[in-house]
Amino acid sequence: MDTQVVNELEGRRGTAPIRVAVAGATGFAGQELLRLLARHPYVSIAAATGSQATSAPRRLPALARIWDGTVVPFDRAAIIAAAEVVFLALPEKASAETAPALLEAGLRVIDLSGAFRLRDSAARTQWYPATATLPEGVAYGLTEFEFEAIRSARLLSNPGCYPTASLLGLLPLQRAGLLQPGADIVIDAKSGISGAGKAATDRTHFSENHGSVAAYNPFGHRHTPEMEQALGRPVTFVPHLVPLDRGILSSLYTRLVPGTTAAAVAAAFEAAYANAPFVRLTGDGLPEIKHVAHTNFCDIGWKVDEGGGRVFVVSVIDNLVKGAAGQAIQNFNVMCGFDQRAGLL
Amino acid sequence: MDTQVVNELEGRRGTAPIRVAVAGATGFAGQELLRLLARHPYVSIAAATGSQATSAPRRLPALARIWDGTVVPFDRAAIIAAAEVVFLALPEKASAETAPALLEAGLRVIDLSGAFRLRDSAARTQWYPATATLPEGVAYGLTEFEFEAIRSARLLSNPGCYPTASLLGLLPLQRAGLLQPGADIVIDAKSGISGAGKAATDRTHFSENHGSVAAYNPFGHRHTPEMEQALGRPVTFVPHLVPLDRGILSSLYTRLVPGTTAAAVAAAFEAAYANAPFVRLTGDGLPEIKHVAHTNFCDIGWKVDEGGGRVFVVSVIDNLVKGAAGQAIQNFNVMCGFDQRAGLL
Amino acid sequence: MDTQVVNELEGRRGTAPIRVAVAGATGFAGQELLRLLARHPYVSIAAATGSQATSAPRRLPALARIWDGTVVPFDRAAIIAAAEVVFLALPEKASAETAPALLEAGLRVIDLSGAFRLRDSAARTQWYPATATLPEGVAYGLTEFEFEAIRSARLLSNPGCYPTASLLGLLPLQRAGLLQPGADIVIDAKSGISGAGKAATDRTHFSENHGSVAAYNPFGHRHTPEMEQALGRPVTFVPHLVPLDRGILSSLYTRLVPGTTAAAVAAAFEAAYANAPFVRLTGDGLPEIKHVAHTNFCDIGWKVDEGGGRVFVVSVIDNLVKGAAGQAIQNFNVMCGFDQRAGLL
Amino acid sequence: MDTQVVNELEGRRGTAPIRVAVAGATGFAGQELLRLLARHPYVSIAAATGSQATSAPRRLPALARIWDGTVVPFDRAAIIAAAEVVFLALPEKASAETAPALLEAGLRVIDLSGAFRLRDSAARTQWYPATATLPEGVAYGLTEFEFEAIRSARLLSNPGCYPTASLLGLLPLQRAGLLQPGADIVIDAKSGISGAGKAATDRTHFSENHGSVAAYNPFGHRHTPEMEQALGRPVTFVPHLVPLDRGILSSLYTRLVPGTTAAAVAAAFEAAYANAPFVRLTGDGLPEIKHVAHTNFCDIGWKVDEGGGRVFVVSVIDNLVKGAAGQAIQNFNVMCGFDQRAGLL
Repeated sequence: MDTQVVNELEGRRGTAPIRVAVAGATGFAGQELLRLLARHPYVSIAAATGSQATSAPRRLPALARIWDGTVVPFDRAAIIAAAEVVFLALPEKASAETAPALLEAGLRVIDLSGAFRLRDSAARTQWYPATATLPEGVAYGLTEFEFEAIRSARLLSNPGCYPTASLLGLLPLQRAGLLQPGADIVIDAKSGISGAGKAATDRTHFSENHGSVAAYNPFGHRHTPEMEQALGRPVTFVPHLVPLDRGILSSLYTRLVPGTTAAAVAAAFEAAYANAPFVRLTGDGLPEIKHVAHTNFCDIGWKVDEGGGRVFVVSVIDNLVKGAAGQAIQNFNVMCGFDQRAGLL
Repeated sequence: MDTQVVNELEGRRGTAPIRVAVAGATGFAGQELLRLLARHPYVSIAAATGSQATSAPRRLPALARIWDGTVVPFDRAAIIAAAEVVFLALPEKASAETAPALLEAGLRVIDLSGAFRLRDSAARTQWYPATATLPEGVAYGLTEFEFEAIRSARLLSNPGCYPTASLLGLLPLQRAGLLQPGADIVIDAKSGISGAGKAATDRTHFSENHGSVAAYNPFGHRHTPEMEQALGRPVTFVPHLVPLDRGILSSLYTRLVPGTTAAAVAAAFEAAYANAPFVRLTGDGLPEIKHVAHTNFCDIGWKVDEGGGRVFVVSVIDNLVKGAAGQAIQNFNVMCGFDQRAGLL
Repeated sequence: MDTQVVNELEGRRGTAPIRVAVAGATGFAGQELLRLLARHPYVSIAAATGSQATSAPRRLPALARIWDGTVVPFDRAAIIAAAEVVFLALPEKASAETAPALLEAGLRVIDLSGAFRLRDSAARTQWYPATATLPEGVAYGLTEFEFEAIRSARLLSNPGCYPTASLLGLLPLQRAGLLQPGADIVIDAKSGISGAGKAATDRTHFSENHGSVAAYNPFGHRHTPEMEQALGRPVTFVPHLVPLDRGILSSLYTRLVPGTTAAAVAAAFEAAYANAPFVRLTGDGLPEIKHVAHTNFCDIGWKVDEGGGRVFVVSVIDNLVKGAAGQAIQNFNVMCGFDQRAGLL
Repeated sequence: MDTQVVNELEGRRGTAPIRVAVAGATGFAGQELLRLLARHPYVSIAAATGSQATSAPRRLPALARIWDGTVVPFDRAAIIAAAEVVFLALPEKASAETAPALLEAGLRVIDLSGAFRLRDSAARTQWYPATATLPEGVAYGLTEFEFEAIRSARLLSNPGCYPTASLLGLLPLQRAGLLQPGADIVIDAKSGISGAGKAATDRTHFSENHGSVAAYNPFGHRHTPEMEQALGRPVTFVPHLVPLDRGILSSLYTRLVPGTTAAAVAAAFEAAYANAPFVRLTGDGLPEIKHVAHTNFCDIGWKVDEGGGRVFVVSVIDNLVKGAAGQAIQNFNVMCGFDQRAGLL
């Protein structure tokens, strides 16, 4: 890791805790942020604000003894006065409206919504219409592939949960030139129900999901353009809901450049993640959600059909950790010059 | 079974289908009613009405090919014109308001809410304030213990799901005089989430229940007075939500009259249910929810501590079948002079 | 339906119950067979034999009051004396050894294993080495596409659970010439744990599956050649285990012949299943496992990307019913000239 | 906390890591021990041995990057040479045979089995016949109530999972004299399936538990005498299996000394746990398993029926953490003079 100091947060390395705020602290990702940040060795939580319209401060009972603060209504001036870095775990419209003012006031922002993920204006207008323009200094926070951009970012756009799992399984092969150009890439992803958010709806009712599996939004999910942007080629993506709480398993199907060996595929994965503390390669032993739940790990396994030119990759994450709060903190660590693992092991 | 005809429905036995309506057909119990009634050999479904405020008729996709009708808004006059028997799967306030007019028009009513379960005015006012008075001709539909009253009832009040499971486990011992007077009766019941209803709330969110168990309403659930009324003595009842969809397991703890043998307990159960087609006794082999899910069976097992004078009873049902729609149809069968099992096996 | 009598079972239509036996009655599929056959209007269960090495007859408590017989050890001569049709719910090696003798004795056999599914000798030797030769008169029992062959079969080879769900979603398009030749067909299937069988293994332990998803056998599952045989082209198939008990959701991805419209796809499905009582088409409203659990239905939905030439199909079944016992009985009904739905609604 | 050094481990406080070994490292509790100990700031893992008969060392994939050692066969001499403290996560027979030799060699032993929990010889002979005698220096490790005994123990007998949850909910009231003498104490406990152990059996099969609940061993579970020993009075205990992986909810029912107020109950809990870092009191807001899963917390809530003299207490833990590995480490911390929370937050 480069030891040159690239920003003022890195200059603070080790001298005083970074003061952070969490907006949207009562949602699933927000609570996970508080849980992790409360134990982070170089952080103090300066504020946590509630995404629900409420005037009364409230406590989060599951976090008792871990973080004993109170969630208060969002107050921009108070946040600017209290914090240096703000994690936004808000709907994208709220993020699109909130982030610019915080940046203007000199704060760093780590946004977990999709508001700032798409660089192409037309695509962004279609999928995230509330985001008129991309602020300067925005980085896409897929940590393992954007380390240098993240280090100097003022606005960190944290990847979506499905793109995190899927891109970590595909990018090593794509960048190594092993994926056949023009071949279809099928991404069949299975997500736990927490991925559908904390709002009580017919879709998140226990009885609708227990004992069931459902595909949704085929060809139409907004994480598709995010993945296509990173890969530089089209994908066929269909998400599914499976009856568990936390976790994503992404099944990736495509074709290899003729002649590609299983050894070449393994070598590409090993080279890509030689220095990645949170990616664990399992090779032929396919990974399972259970192994990564409640951790920031992404486990990746694969199978090559050498004769047929096909490759199948499985990538698993905890959607609330590596797919949201954990990766956000991993990115925060990079921005601050800390060890990527600080607060995450 | 007595062959004397006690009402005009019995007089119809076998000659023409009984025309029934289901009000509240889109709820969990309502859909189960449609599923079962559609296959009932002596029934035609004259109408199904939606409890949700909607002006448009709608279909229920899960019932396609089973019942292909449409759910329409509730229209009292249309119901009176079309049906002879109406199943009300409505909130108790709606039942309290709807049932009297239907009865007055000469229809039989089978009500699945709590509106008409409590005979004591003070208790009813406390727990079901919308029910000003009990109509004449009301019977409490715990089929195995109220056969004759059900046969001639005009308004059938279907028992609650917790009381069904718990009373079937306790009444044989209580009525046989084997339960020690004055001893505490502890009823610890575990229910699947469908018991909390179809409304999307924080309580019914998948993520709140997966991997969790929660007790609720200790000492304060309105099924308590219903059980006390049937048993003629107080009980300590605490319901719990467990992470499954359908089913109740009720664990019953109390003391036996000194000297009561295990054989006497078994004999009491066998005598009580000698002619009950839907009660299966498992003795020492304790029953599990899995064995009764999607059926109208109540399975009951028990363990006697002869030296200590204690008895432990386990009773399991499917809360939407024997605890709601199935028992309602069982009662309907009794009212019509049909075999109790018609449409339920 | 043709009214010509094609075999002696059809000649028996309606006159006397068909005497059937179930071998392997304590497994998941075997128990489901007993549950369904016990209520079948034209059947008497002549024998049920246990796949476990046991000399003592045993009862199945969950089937009490539904089927109150006893499971006894397998005795070929006794079966031949007692039954006309035998359902084999055995491991394929046991089926391969047992079926020929039963056929030779003049019985009809409905085999739920994979022993007799593959017509190509080389493929069969690779995947089902215990099956030396295919008996004469064998039919592949995908009811919706093999009606006439099933009608006159002496040995009915019931399809695998994954092929049932997947082929019902693909064959209408393949046979209508709408699928682009040479394009990859990706079959990503999600199965409940009952699909892994009743044996207690690390793979079927509750704790290994709760909160988890796992892919297994990529490119290497023996249901692959079965699907390729029916489709006449290669497929990429990866099965997954999801944390539920019963059900399969098969996600099917491929390309359409250029210019194929969404209307053409819908028309192909409607034409294929115009007379299929157990296939329900849901169109854009994608089906979910919950809708078919505990039924013999296969629900199929799809989404066409007209501009991109892609089609995505979702097909769901209950793996123990339409994927095993239910389809076996549906085939039995066809063999006997009964309504396909007899005993299945 | 007393600052006097009571043993040689305390004398080591802060100077060098304590060398620990884990026997039975591939079981559920063993893996949890490794996961927690690997991050413990004052510990080095000197050895991990496998409870399965295997001659080959093996890795645990889920622990990759957390603990990258190998599990080796148990070798007593090697353990004695390498470790100062040994955690035994073995079946009780193996613990009973192994612990004495380790103690004799001067090591401290923390045993997670039931082998050394019962002080009464007759009871021990009945429930744990492999344990001939209790070694000297044994302490019962219910940390919140046995702090001083634990501090100087040479053999720490870690409590059972059910007793941990249940006793923490009852002891404050019993010791404060608020529970009516002679009244029944009913303990209805619900446990996740990991409590049934890692062995693949019919009881731990996914399909037996999904969608089901089962009571087992009424009046006959060996955790009963353990609870009666701690409380000094009889209890009625029935455990249940619920369809989740990790967690216990214990529902506790009994009677209060006449005149006991809700305030007195609350005061007793607050006094008992004023200095307990891992007990969180929730009062009327009843706790749920979800809030404590994957933590060492025990959350306790209650409801008092002042008029009726009844009290209902709910206590929840993660059975593998506070009910096993976590409490073992908490006790280890006490034995070593560390902060109880070291490695557990």
